Amino acid sequence: MSDYDLKNTKFLKDVNYPSDLKKLNLMDLRNLADELREYLIDTISKIGGHLGASLGVCELTLALHYVFNTPEDKIIWDVGHQGYIHKILTGRKEALKTIRQKNGISGFLKRDESEFDVFGAGHASTSISAALGIATARDFQNKKYKVVAVIGDGSMTGGMAYEAMNNIGLLKKDIIVVLNDNKMSIAPNVWSLQNYFNELMTNDTYNKFRSKVWEMTGVLDKRTSDRLRRAAAKIEGGLKGVITPGMLFEALGFRYFGPVNGHNVVNLVKTLEEIHKMSGPILVHVITEKGKGPSYATDHPQKIHALNPFDKTTGIEHKKIKVTPYTKVFGESLTELAKKDEKIIAVNAAMPDGTGLNYMQKEIPERYFDVGIAEQHAVTFCAGLAAEGFTPVAAIYSTFLQRAFDQIIHDVALQKLPVVFVLDRAGLVGADGPTHHGAFDLSYLRLVPGMVIMSPKDEAELRDMLYTATQYKRGPIALRYPRGNAVGVELHDFQKIDIGKGEILKSGEDAAILAVGNMVSHSLAAAELLEKANVKAEVVNARFIKPLDIKLLSDIFSRFRKIITIEDNTVSGGFGSAVTEFAIQNNLKNDILIHGIPDRFIDHGKPEELYEELKLDAKGISEVVIEFLSRVKYHDEKI
Amino acid sequence: MSDYDLKNTKFLKDVNYPSDLKKLNLMDLRNLADELREYLIDTISKIGGHLGASLGVCELTLALHYVFNTPEDKIIWDVGHQGYIHKILTGRKEALKTIRQKNGISGFLKRDESEFDVFGAGHASTSISAALGIATARDFQNKKYKVVAVIGDGSMTGGMAYEAMNNIGLLKKDIIVVLNDNKMSIAPNVWSLQNYFNELMTNDTYNKFRSKVWEMTGVLDKRTSDRLRRAAAKIEGGLKGVITPGMLFEALGFRYFGPVNGHNVVNLVKTLEEIHKMSGPILVHVITEKGKGPSYATDHPQKIHALNPFDKTTGIEHKKIKVTPYTKVFGESLTELAKKDEKIIAVNAAMPDGTGLNYMQKEIPERYFDVGIAEQHAVTFCAGLAAEGFTPVAAIYSTFLQRAFDQIIHDVALQKLPVVFVLDRAGLVGADGPTHHGAFDLSYLRLVPGMVIMSPKDEAELRDMLYTATQYKRGPIALRYPRGNAVGVELHDFQKIDIGKGEILKSGEDAAILAVGNMVSHSLAAAELLEKANVKAEVVNARFIKPLDIKLLSDIFSRFRKIITIEDNTVSGGFGSAVTEFAIQNNLKNDILIHGIPDRFIDHGKPEELYEELKLDAKGISEVVIEFLSRVKYHDEKI
Repeated sequence: MSDYDLKNTKFLKDVNYPSDLKKLNLMDLRNLADELREYLIDTISKIGGHLGASLGVCELTLALHYVFNTPEDKIIWDVGHQGYIHKILTGRKEALKTIRQKNGISGFLKRDESEFDVFGAGHASTSISAALGIATARDFQNKKYKVVAVIGDGSMTGGMAYEAMNNIGLLKKDIIVVLNDNKMSIAPNVWSLQNYFNELMTNDTYNKFRSKVWEMTGVLDKRTSDRLRRAAAKIEGGLKGVITPGMLFEALGFRYFGPVNGHNVVNLVKTLEEIHKMSGPILVHVITEKGKGPSYATDHPQKIHALNPFDKTTGIEHKKIKVTPYTKVFGESLTELAKKDEKIIAVNAAMPDGTGLNYMQKEIPERYFDVGIAEQHAVTFCAGLAAEGFTPVAAIYSTFLQRAFDQIIHDVALQKLPVVFVLDRAGLVGADGPTHHGAFDLSYLRLVPGMVIMSPKDEAELRDMLYTATQYKRGPIALRYPRGNAVGVELHDFQKIDIGKGEILKSGEDAAILAVGNMVSHSLAAAELLEKANVKAEVVNARFIKPLDIKLLSDIFSRFRKIITIEDNTVSGGFGSAVTEFAIQNNLKNDILIHGIPDRFIDHGKPEELYEELKLDAKGISEVVIEFLSRVKYHDEKI
Repeated sequence: MSDYDLKNTKFLKDVNYPSDLKKLNLMDLRNLADELREYLIDTISKIGGHLGASLGVCELTLALHYVFNTPEDKIIWDVGHQGYIHKILTGRKEALKTIRQKNGISGFLKRDESEFDVFGAGHASTSISAALGIATARDFQNKKYKVVAVIGDGSMTGGMAYEAMNNIGLLKKDIIVVLNDNKMSIAPNVWSLQNYFNELMTNDTYNKFRSKVWEMTGVLDKRTSDRLRRAAAKIEGGLKGVITPGMLFEALGFRYFGPVNGHNVVNLVKTLEEIHKMSGPILVHVITEKGKGPSYATDHPQKIHALNPFDKTTGIEHKKIKVTPYTKVFGESLTELAKKDEKIIAVNAAMPDGTGLNYMQKEIPERYFDVGIAEQHAVTFCAGLAAEGFTPVAAIYSTFLQRAFDQIIHDVALQKLPVVFVLDRAGLVGADGPTHHGAFDLSYLRLVPGMVIMSPKDEAELRDMLYTATQYKRGPIALRYPRGNAVGVELHDFQKIDIGKGEILKSGEDAAILAVGNMVSHSLAAAELLEKANVKAEVVNARFIKPLDIKLLSDIFSRFRKIITIEDNTVSGGFGSAVTEFAIQNNLKNDILIHGIPDRFIDHGKPEELYEELKLDAKGISEVVIEFLSRVKYHDEKI
């Protein structure tokens, strides 16, 4: 396959902004869609990225920018990883080649990046709320622009979307919600639940009129009345058919249009032009196919949700993963434990593959639950299970568990229910950037009374911690680990770890490094580097962020004047803060350095690049330690 | 009115548990309901408490315990302040007299308190998720008990309830949801939105059958066909009538029954007996009247949501409030500011009176928004407003803002949007207890990059901080203050406070007390007590929890060896933790004591009692300071 060249395209070469689109004939949009798709696949095949979602909304994005007058009209994309075509059409055609790379454009929508990115997003279900805020602001200023939220069926399972629709229906604002239904989540099942309806047409009004028809047909001759009775029966049947997805939205005060074929761009434009003229809350139901285009994508839509660089003909990723990812170790270990312990139940929020629960799903499907993008419900559902003696394991990304913060406190911890929280993607996640970094969990979990928080130094310890967590029955217990590959150590049979016990991994003399999770291996490597600089650092695997290992800490504080805490969590209120609280409460005067993610949002980039930038890799840690030792030495001398 | 005596009741005197109920004739339940209501009013008139909700569900509670076999069958009450009648009927008839008092029974449901309290609650919308967890556990164990969630219409506006219903519809579990519809929230408007439906019967199936009827009537004589056309038109009208609350639930996979009169106990029992026989997800829509019973209650249902002790004939509260509550100062001040600044928009989540936004509601209704019990949506709605240049003020209780933790980070802070968060009920709230204490906000807000956090020492400073917040345009800014009366100082014109500037209120020599919010006045009083013990304490009003006043702290740390931080927030990750991080990062060796709410859940009781217990009142603080000074002195000598 020859190199792709934008110059060879018929339409795309001249399209840089929505204004360029409007010069095209409606019929030409079909060819432009093909060119967009080809350019997108070519580019992402080289650098990797979320492909499927954007392929699915290719025609929809074109149609929206063709019909609406952006950026004056506001399009708000939910989640935002469906925004690649949008980026191409809004001044970022060339910049697409830098997407998700350090200093390149973001893989999500971002206000800083373009005036066309009206509202940033990375988490799901936020677009309708933001749209209502923007539409309300518009009306206060007597402006006339249109506000359009584009939201997937998956995001519609999030309660926040419902809260927002509720509110819009009440306020009757002019808002268009485009439901991009690619049937990728549990949603279509939810919205097609007609089974229950059958015996249920008990509504008074309806029944009254139904009986009136029957009554009246009684006065007719038999043939006519039979035909009418059949017609009436069919009306009844039709009524049942009326229970469509539309009902849900209409009950909430929306006008429902659809379903519309999301890949017929001409028809889409015509539909949106009609809708453009209307007012009030409107929902347009568009059916799309995730990964529309290449056969490997439509055949395996889950696979191309997010991709490493791949062969654009076959869709096969170039890089083969050699070391096992933490996700897989967790998924397999939980399945192994669940086979022996039938009280274990796995719960996730629309992330079976991302969390590794696909192993449970496959092997013990009856004890596997995907509740939709509904973290709040997931956690309280687990609380209910735990209240009845089960051991629910809620596997939710660190950043997404923020959604269930209140439920962790109010429904789980307050009632001391033994729910196991497994937080994948803790720390810096890399290319997904600030919306997805798991930078806060140690802080937001540590403030919860009674919460136990662990982080494993490698995959073997992950297994032991998971086992420990499922055996712990005294309250909530959390386990967090990073995205990506584990360390590569050998696995062993499950062993219980004493709650609140850390371990010394390397002894030293000059300073002690207390490290958490994947910072342990970085710290061990840093200690090697430090030795070359004649600094002998002791390295401690903290294992527990809460409760702290008071005995071990007392020992360390008595042996070392200089102590450095290392964590891939914000320095505000995290592990280092906990160690500091311990020192202060015990009036210990050691020199302490809290090292971690600084108190600001961290941009996207490869994890290695980010670790380097934040001095959380081996080299950075060694530099930080040396700088700290010389600084406090200087301080000592000054005193 | 003579003293109430249970012995004089005909039925209630012998009813202590649901098993006693079942000995009664169905018809006797009517009289029992009257007796229950009278007992409840008599008791609560003496001690205060949530009255309205429980009066509203008197017959419903009776009917549920009459029909279902509790505690084997599980009734899960949403929010839980509707549970007083439930408590009377489940072994706590006498204990009702201690409700919400220190060491008395809780004002909410509580698992520790009774096996009939299946799942605790204080926050809204959790019951359906918990019910699904419990029903799932039941099915795994092949048990047959019934699971019933009782949820108000207000709680139904919370997204979590929708997430749970979604999930139940999908899993088709045997669960009964009783919707207690007392029309106290925005919900009835949302569920009666039939306006939009008119032009919308575009459903193919329906239209096809409709035209078939018309077509067929053509073959009839005119009189008959006219009558049939009229009937058909009525069917159409009936169809529109079908858009009832039921639709929403049916679309989610529930069988809908109702509406049922919630005060006809005989009918309720019969309906529930029918439903008891059914399986699958069922929603029973029960219409009740909040405060049903005394005329003062039904006339002013909002008033009797929660009450101080009152005259049971007139409903008038005994105690008159003399000092102005913070809530009122905030509500009036915001209205004053909003009159001058048309960019200010007030947003709350179903708490107009509780937050003080009723003043805005009354005076500037067009810039007042109540979004329902939907904190997540509230915050992102504010983010949308801020993105378009407005100054939204989200007034949400400290404990309820936990629900929007992710939205604060992801939608507001990450995008540096200037949303003003006003957290009432920060610190210990008193009788409502652990579900409602605002014990965590300083910690969970402090970890958010770019967040500014303030707490005023009195109502004059509250006004200045609010003014400062509405003028601050650089990102999110939060203001938190306690429940109850302000200090009683004189108010002045709005003055801007420099971001991050604290103030020294009292100079001293022996130790410095750094206090936050309402702990400032306690600390000043403590300093008076300390002077009697010959300890001269300097008292600092921190004002800002983030950013800290580095200059002031440096000064304090240079002048005082001994520093005590005081906050009505958990000691984990809060203000004291921030001061400690500052000290450590600057290698300062002062003796620090972090004093605040300990890292455990705090039971209910009067605020004064709780402050006393936790040594957060003037006396307690002075004792803590003296103990600290002697402890570190001893430590010094030992060294």
